[in-house]
Amino acid sequence: MSVAQGREYLAIPGPSVMPEAVLRAMHRPAPNIYEGALIDMVASLIPDLKRVARTAHNAAIYISNGHGAWEAALSNVAAPGETVLVPATGRFGLGWADMAQGLGIEAQILDFGKQTPWDLDRVAEVLRADKAHRIKAVLGVHVDTSSSIRNDLPGLRRVLDEVGHPALLMADCIAAMACDRFEMDGWGVDVAVTGSQKGLMVPPGLGFVFFNDKAAAVRAKMPRVSRYWDWAPRADPQAFYQYFGGTAPTHHLYGLRAALDLIHDEGIEHVWARHERLAQAIWAACEVWGQTGPLELNVSDPAYRSHAVTALRIGAPQGSALRDWVSRNFGLTLGIGLGMAEPDDPAWHGFFRIGHMGHVNGHMVLGMLGGIEAGLTALEIPHGTGAVEAAATVIAGK
Amino acid sequence: MSVAQGREYLAIPGPSVMPEAVLRAMHRPAPNIYEGALIDMVASLIPDLKRVARTAHNAAIYISNGHGAWEAALSNVAAPGETVLVPATGRFGLGWADMAQGLGIEAQILDFGKQTPWDLDRVAEVLRADKAHRIKAVLGVHVDTSSSIRNDLPGLRRVLDEVGHPALLMADCIAAMACDRFEMDGWGVDVAVTGSQKGLMVPPGLGFVFFNDKAAAVRAKMPRVSRYWDWAPRADPQAFYQYFGGTAPTHHLYGLRAALDLIHDEGIEHVWARHERLAQAIWAACEVWGQTGPLELNVSDPAYRSHAVTALRIGAPQGSALRDWVSRNFGLTLGIGLGMAEPDDPAWHGFFRIGHMGHVNGHMVLGMLGGIEAGLTALEIPHGTGAVEAAATVIAGK
Amino acid sequence: MSVAQGREYLAIPGPSVMPEAVLRAMHRPAPNIYEGALIDMVASLIPDLKRVARTAHNAAIYISNGHGAWEAALSNVAAPGETVLVPATGRFGLGWADMAQGLGIEAQILDFGKQTPWDLDRVAEVLRADKAHRIKAVLGVHVDTSSSIRNDLPGLRRVLDEVGHPALLMADCIAAMACDRFEMDGWGVDVAVTGSQKGLMVPPGLGFVFFNDKAAAVRAKMPRVSRYWDWAPRADPQAFYQYFGGTAPTHHLYGLRAALDLIHDEGIEHVWARHERLAQAIWAACEVWGQTGPLELNVSDPAYRSHAVTALRIGAPQGSALRDWVSRNFGLTLGIGLGMAEPDDPAWHGFFRIGHMGHVNGHMVLGMLGGIEAGLTALEIPHGTGAVEAAATVIAGK
Amino acid sequence: MSVAQGREYLAIPGPSVMPEAVLRAMHRPAPNIYEGALIDMVASLIPDLKRVARTAHNAAIYISNGHGAWEAALSNVAAPGETVLVPATGRFGLGWADMAQGLGIEAQILDFGKQTPWDLDRVAEVLRADKAHRIKAVLGVHVDTSSSIRNDLPGLRRVLDEVGHPALLMADCIAAMACDRFEMDGWGVDVAVTGSQKGLMVPPGLGFVFFNDKAAAVRAKMPRVSRYWDWAPRADPQAFYQYFGGTAPTHHLYGLRAALDLIHDEGIEHVWARHERLAQAIWAACEVWGQTGPLELNVSDPAYRSHAVTALRIGAPQGSALRDWVSRNFGLTLGIGLGMAEPDDPAWHGFFRIGHMGHVNGHMVLGMLGGIEAGLTALEIPHGTGAVEAAATVIAGK
Repeated sequence: MSVAQGREYLAIPGPSVMPEAVLRAMHRPAPNIYEGALIDMVASLIPDLKRVARTAHNAAIYISNGHGAWEAALSNVAAPGETVLVPATGRFGLGWADMAQGLGIEAQILDFGKQTPWDLDRVAEVLRADKAHRIKAVLGVHVDTSSSIRNDLPGLRRVLDEVGHPALLMADCIAAMACDRFEMDGWGVDVAVTGSQKGLMVPPGLGFVFFNDKAAAVRAKMPRVSRYWDWAPRADPQAFYQYFGGTAPTHHLYGLRAALDLIHDEGIEHVWARHERLAQAIWAACEVWGQTGPLELNVSDPAYRSHAVTALRIGAPQGSALRDWVSRNFGLTLGIGLGMAEPDDPAWHGFFRIGHMGHVNGHMVLGMLGGIEAGLTALEIPHGTGAVEAAATVIAGK
Repeated sequence: MSVAQGREYLAIPGPSVMPEAVLRAMHRPAPNIYEGALIDMVASLIPDLKRVARTAHNAAIYISNGHGAWEAALSNVAAPGETVLVPATGRFGLGWADMAQGLGIEAQILDFGKQTPWDLDRVAEVLRADKAHRIKAVLGVHVDTSSSIRNDLPGLRRVLDEVGHPALLMADCIAAMACDRFEMDGWGVDVAVTGSQKGLMVPPGLGFVFFNDKAAAVRAKMPRVSRYWDWAPRADPQAFYQYFGGTAPTHHLYGLRAALDLIHDEGIEHVWARHERLAQAIWAACEVWGQTGPLELNVSDPAYRSHAVTALRIGAPQGSALRDWVSRNFGLTLGIGLGMAEPDDPAWHGFFRIGHMGHVNGHMVLGMLGGIEAGLTALEIPHGTGAVEAAATVIAGK
Repeated sequence: MSVAQGREYLAIPGPSVMPEAVLRAMHRPAPNIYEGALIDMVASLIPDLKRVARTAHNAAIYISNGHGAWEAALSNVAAPGETVLVPATGRFGLGWADMAQGLGIEAQILDFGKQTPWDLDRVAEVLRADKAHRIKAVLGVHVDTSSSIRNDLPGLRRVLDEVGHPALLMADCIAAMACDRFEMDGWGVDVAVTGSQKGLMVPPGLGFVFFNDKAAAVRAKMPRVSRYWDWAPRADPQAFYQYFGGTAPTHHLYGLRAALDLIHDEGIEHVWARHERLAQAIWAACEVWGQTGPLELNVSDPAYRSHAVTALRIGAPQGSALRDWVSRNFGLTLGIGLGMAEPDDPAWHGFFRIGHMGHVNGHMVLGMLGGIEAGLTALEIPHGTGAVEAAATVIAGK
Repeated sequence: MSVAQGREYLAIPGPSVMPEAVLRAMHRPAPNIYEGALIDMVASLIPDLKRVARTAHNAAIYISNGHGAWEAALSNVAAPGETVLVPATGRFGLGWADMAQGLGIEAQILDFGKQTPWDLDRVAEVLRADKAHRIKAVLGVHVDTSSSIRNDLPGLRRVLDEVGHPALLMADCIAAMACDRFEMDGWGVDVAVTGSQKGLMVPPGLGFVFFNDKAAAVRAKMPRVSRYWDWAPRADPQAFYQYFGGTAPTHHLYGLRAALDLIHDEGIEHVWARHERLAQAIWAACEVWGQTGPLELNVSDPAYRSHAVTALRIGAPQGSALRDWVSRNFGLTLGIGLGMAEPDDPAWHGFFRIGHMGHVNGHMVLGMLGGIEAGLTALEIPHGTGAVEAAATVIAGK
């Protein structure tokens, strides 16, 4: 029998669980967009966003999703016919390259598959070969949501420096920001991109582009940037109406204010540490299950695993069967495997993902793991014993 | 370190977790209370409430909490100086007796302690001795929220019938209704009392009294019933303004409409079965923990355990320490032990309770159990291994 | 054609329009009721409630509506068989007397009709005649919501003092509190009663009883007070669980916190002044309309008109016709006439009331008056010209 | 003294007043974006959007504001170096032209000032002169929100047909859709653009582009369209994830569902008629005020006035003074004059605008007009008498 009737828990890798405070802040009448309280409130968002990205430079807010933020970042630094280098470790690396191609930019892809991180030696090789410095930017996905690989952004910076290549280092932090440690200025990232609906805990609808002076200088030399994506006027929150290129996304801005309050009340270092601890708990459970059965973590080296999303392999059709079981019987939604196989390939049903980003804590994670335990048992999928206990031990700090 | 930042989970035995649909339904402007849509909406509540209590008779809604519903029920059937019999198995049985005394009613208490159900033989004895039929009603708490004992209401009816005593059978279903099976008409209960904030999943603020024709006849002979508690006008929803003895509790009524929809969409039989299954999962975990350590279920016989609340003994100060740990580190609130010791007695810290009533499902229960597991581990309280897994196996139906 | 589709405006004399901040504050998960943040929040309510009632004495909060607060106040000071004096100027004065009778208290009614305030000379006469001081309390409705008469509470105090009668002065401030000036201690009121859903701007569901030491002394001598209504434990917010006689009305308390913040941010003196100004604007419009047509204010002397509600006479069936027209065509709900005629008497359709209490401002009042103007015009009911302009002039302070 | 404390009323020309049902629908947990109920819900939006735009063709939803929708529409039909013709009657006509220029498109502007509609003869002349058909599209703003001029779209179609020019007819319906009658197919409009935050009554954050087969054919021949703005995949709601070019704007979509239900429950013809009637009421009041004083409607010919927004001239500094007075004293926010003078020009303070779009009804409009009446009086700005009464008479249908 189903015991699903209760609070639904959406444990997919975005949109993440929205805090009550965020939803409550969005439940309000529309404010005046030309004068009054909204103007000051928006001005207050910028420094708090920059504290999340660890940058002293600029933050632009767009009404868009993460794909829009990708397009925004590219539109400011690369014109049609120019080239970017894209080391990819999953569907989203390939997706950003595709977005570049849609803008007429040439995207040179280095595909490292779906289970291992960037091979920085190969990246170095390609950069070294680019004597003419045709590569204008390197597009690095920090955490690829599809594979849950967390790549080495500081390492990529080192490679650029060692090679002496002037390309911009652009980071997709959509799945990672406010989950995995990220130090934009400290790591030498020139442009960082994210969205509202993951670690920032706000419904989908806002994209963010952080950029430093080096990136601003590149934009200043662009022949043309579309008005909607141009970050220049958005770096000046005094010019409020221009700031959003028209009407401001009023309700999302109130939600963002509430979310940033939650983040900074906790402390960004603590936010990162919490995600790390919870991720370790999940890995511990998965490793126990995998001892005697088909379940395995997609990324074998813990150093390259995301703290926000975990991709798993369990063999078809068990992945889909497990997701179905916990959804119908347990009130829990797990993420589909994305980019591991084509949807019409039977192998597609052999993957799933767990989202553990943003507003997530101990009982949520152990409840989710308990659901997998119950599902494996109900479906008679072989699995090791003691998994949830192993996760609880990690959370207990023992 | 704490991993508490996320959705808070209040696993106390009331107020229970409010469904989103209920809170959303209450977030609205005030309606007209004299005419229009509210009138029809309220009329629709009555049959749906009666389906929850399994009665074809009458339902009165009060603006009150459960204590108010206690007073309401008593006010309609017993005058100052009259006598009621109260077989008690915890603080709430004693509390209802106290409420009667506050009205000048003599309450004859049969105290069966805090760990075992009614001894129906002793009840029968007392009733048999009451040749003059001075006992006007027997006040039976179905589930005592403090001890989590679930008493045998059909058995109490049988005793009354066997003895041939005409007293009304009055049931406190505050902790039990819409959690544990309850059949008002089938079990021969004359008056049943409940509140909004437990199995009915609505914020505290509504009390309910169900009564049959026998009880109505008793009320008709009462010299006087206070206007606020008089159930007679409230049994006629046509007389809308009189129905609530003044202004209607508008927002709670919208919340109740949403909650009754959830209950009847699921089906009351399924609601009961879900609570039973989840309770069994919790007991299974507790029994495993107790194999090598101090944790024990307050009620040893499963046949007398509530499906809505579970009282536990773990020894002082571990009860309070565990509650503190999961609250500070895990985002989970467990219930205090109530009525097991005085608050200023050190022994008070040796108890806690789990609420599992209303809007509760698999991931919530396993997340809560995971928190106890983590807390026991962190605090180095001895406990058996495999508890959460045992619970998951119950949920898996294996 | 109807132009009703837009924000509905409920201009009835309670429930009043709920501020967004109040509804938002109530849209939240249930809190722990035994420990934690709720306890401190509730403690913060008491002084802020007392600032609204202008008393340094005690405030008790009940889960009830205004009728419950009536019963609560009476239960603490008068036992069955004792006598109270009720000078009445409308349905609610008679209603409080009826509530007393329901408790077995003898209510001696002085009925002053529905259009004029108390005749204090007659009250004095009755008190003087009561040599034995059988009258234990005088029950005075400050503003009778049905007739919109505002009575002279300080005058009633003077009469008691001049006569030297020891009866308690009890005031029903349900329609008036936080609308019309009220000074509990300054005016020598011993007990004051109100509800949440009018000037306090919270959904129906809370009742309040303020009482001073003289009233507390009376209660201390009562043979018995029902547990639910006993104000003694409620005057001690430290005893939290006892405070609400069981489960606290959690969500309403959060709403009340938000409402008290609004009131004290504005300042209670300003709240009163705003209501006065808006009432004067409404009277100005009504007087203009009445110059050439059937509309007339129920209370002719402005000194005795409520600042929170205005009762009007227009002749049957125009009262109902006008209410229907603005509801169907304009998005505005006006209040029914209450207590002016029996609902099955055709004359019943000759009255209506305007609520202007609580969260009400300039555009709401002028929009409401504009609706009456449009309705009178559409229905071809004769009326003077320049009414809304007259009201606007009052609001403009000219 | 201020009587502003009450419901705030934002009578600016967008964002408009959000219905309670819309805000309530958005207050919910995030849904699964890959499977389940959201997919069907989104599919249901498309036909209902098309019924609002009166088209049997295609609707694309973007996460953007209106400026984004402008860029989206242009990106699909005109490449850098191509030409569009822009007959402008206010700031938003010029703004769309500027957006085109930002994309490298040549925008040929016909500026008709800020008080009169398009001169179609001049448009015809220009089109006739374009023998080479270099003009790929004509960009017509239906209602320019800054000037409140409503232009003759069917007339523009006639001109294109008479001249035999193949340019696409593209309409900006941002301020007009679901307010003023608009018949996309009936009027021969090829592309129509709108946003969520005006007649559609949803918070800012969604842009919409409707396009017919002729426009789709133009897009098919484009060398390249950016992924984010490409409407082709968005015309196929089956391809859900591609549909929004990434993560769907989940909460806005639920709000849109609620808003479309309100619109179609009322009936789009009735929505238009309601806006017309309310606009006529506003004009009637303004004309009365203008009889003896400085206030005048910006557009003298009623046939060219918007039914959603009204721009007014009153002379500096009265425009700003009036807006300030009603905001501080009355709880009402009026719109600034936009594009009539530069913000640093003292003349800037001589204009204001009234928004009357979307969720707006009789009491809102008369309350707003009452506020202007009170403000004119308080500030001693000369004005004719009987204005609100004139508006009420229009609403009364007399």
